[in-house]
Amino acid sequence: MIRLDDLENGYFIYQDTDAFCFGIDAVLLAHFGKLKNNDRVLDLCTGNGIVPLLMHAVARDDGLSVHFDGLEIQAPIAQLATKSVGYNKLEESIAITTGDLREAATIYGPASFSVVTCNPPYMKARQGLRGETDAKTIARHEVMCTLEEIILQSSKVLKSRGRFIMVHRPARLAEIFAALHTCHLELKRMQLVYPYVDKAPTMVLIEAVKGGGPQLNVEPPLIVYNADRSYTEQVLRIYGKVK
Amino acid sequence: MIRLDDLENGYFIYQDTDAFCFGIDAVLLAHFGKLKNNDRVLDLCTGNGIVPLLMHAVARDDGLSVHFDGLEIQAPIAQLATKSVGYNKLEESIAITTGDLREAATIYGPASFSVVTCNPPYMKARQGLRGETDAKTIARHEVMCTLEEIILQSSKVLKSRGRFIMVHRPARLAEIFAALHTCHLELKRMQLVYPYVDKAPTMVLIEAVKGGGPQLNVEPPLIVYNADRSYTEQVLRIYGKVK
Repeated sequence: MIRLDDLENGYFIYQDTDAFCFGIDAVLLAHFGKLKNNDRVLDLCTGNGIVPLLMHAVARDDGLSVHFDGLEIQAPIAQLATKSVGYNKLEESIAITTGDLREAATIYGPASFSVVTCNPPYMKARQGLRGETDAKTIARHEVMCTLEEIILQSSKVLKSRGRFIMVHRPARLAEIFAALHTCHLELKRMQLVYPYVDKAPTMVLIEAVKGGGPQLNVEPPLIVYNADRSYTEQVLRIYGKVK
Repeated sequence: MIRLDDLENGYFIYQDTDAFCFGIDAVLLAHFGKLKNNDRVLDLCTGNGIVPLLMHAVARDDGLSVHFDGLEIQAPIAQLATKSVGYNKLEESIAITTGDLREAATIYGPASFSVVTCNPPYMKARQGLRGETDAKTIARHEVMCTLEEIILQSSKVLKSRGRFIMVHRPARLAEIFAALHTCHLELKRMQLVYPYVDKAPTMVLIEAVKGGGPQLNVEPPLIVYNADRSYTEQVLRIYGKVK
């Protein structure tokens, strides 16, 4: 079912409830990524375009001029993202392309972006899933691209000193570090997202810089829920600002 | 000044207040490192021997038989550690050696330990400090050894599937990951230590396994102080258990 949702930031988004609806990951990623005036941003695995839509609203409120490209391999979902861009009259600021991120450097040209964002599939493609190519599987499992491929292409399309901003699972951190290092992206900022103050983290937000030095800034913990399962003030502030 | 301190775990420790007295880092490291029966542990940068003394007490309480070696480059501090071992009648369980950790694999032989622990100097040796070799500088700055040298030697002295357990600064995490990866130590467990729930972390505890797989378990946050500056229950429990 196609649904039009109010992002409460001035923009609306079309979502296909049978494919993938955005979650808190996209919101936290959009808040974690700090943009500068004249940034050119590529969002990989853009899906229904949620990350560019959220980040554009923040940039707009901050008076920044930023251009976004979004790359999505699934044509019907890319079309939905384009429809949302049109609905919000953002054709001049957000361009959605249907394509394979493993060809991003060919599609856009090398060293053409100052920022790459990505809310990728978190799970490895397992034997049993390999044949499956339904929309939800592609969004959640590395069927169409691996973590290493995402990081390699990001490094290629980023200019020197360009920033790579991603949300992922903490369990994959060792692989993320290794792949970043191989691709000359140096981890500069990291924040762990803990569902509760006494629980293991479920997400990690990272920012790496192409050709950066090794000093890493680990941020205060981001805790999602209070003990009574209500959102923490920290998360409510993010939702208020991003959305 | 040489002082005899009660560790409140049945053991005492001699500390030279002009050189280096142990801090919460050693306590958290000793608690984070989980030992098994018949483990053979090497503590690098052992200083006054605090980590073996704390970990031996935990192993003793858990009914485990564990042998510890401690390697320290500064002879007067190693002598102090040996004096503490003697005071506690632990000569059969803890052996302190004066030596350079860059020669650890020669001193002890390769693949001779199941666990390596280390509470190393956190800070890089800076230009201005290079000439200095006083005890405090050596304990805090990488004058006598670098992070990469520690990790390389640890990998050499560890058996296959052996565990490397270290406390360090989060700012150095990117370097730690890179060095571990180079030395075939795979990060398996990590915990960030935040002084307050809304502050950036000041320490990180890691466990890597020689020849392990890439799945990383990031633990719940370790928060040291409540807003009123009293210790959290979490830390009081650790102090109760470790010391």
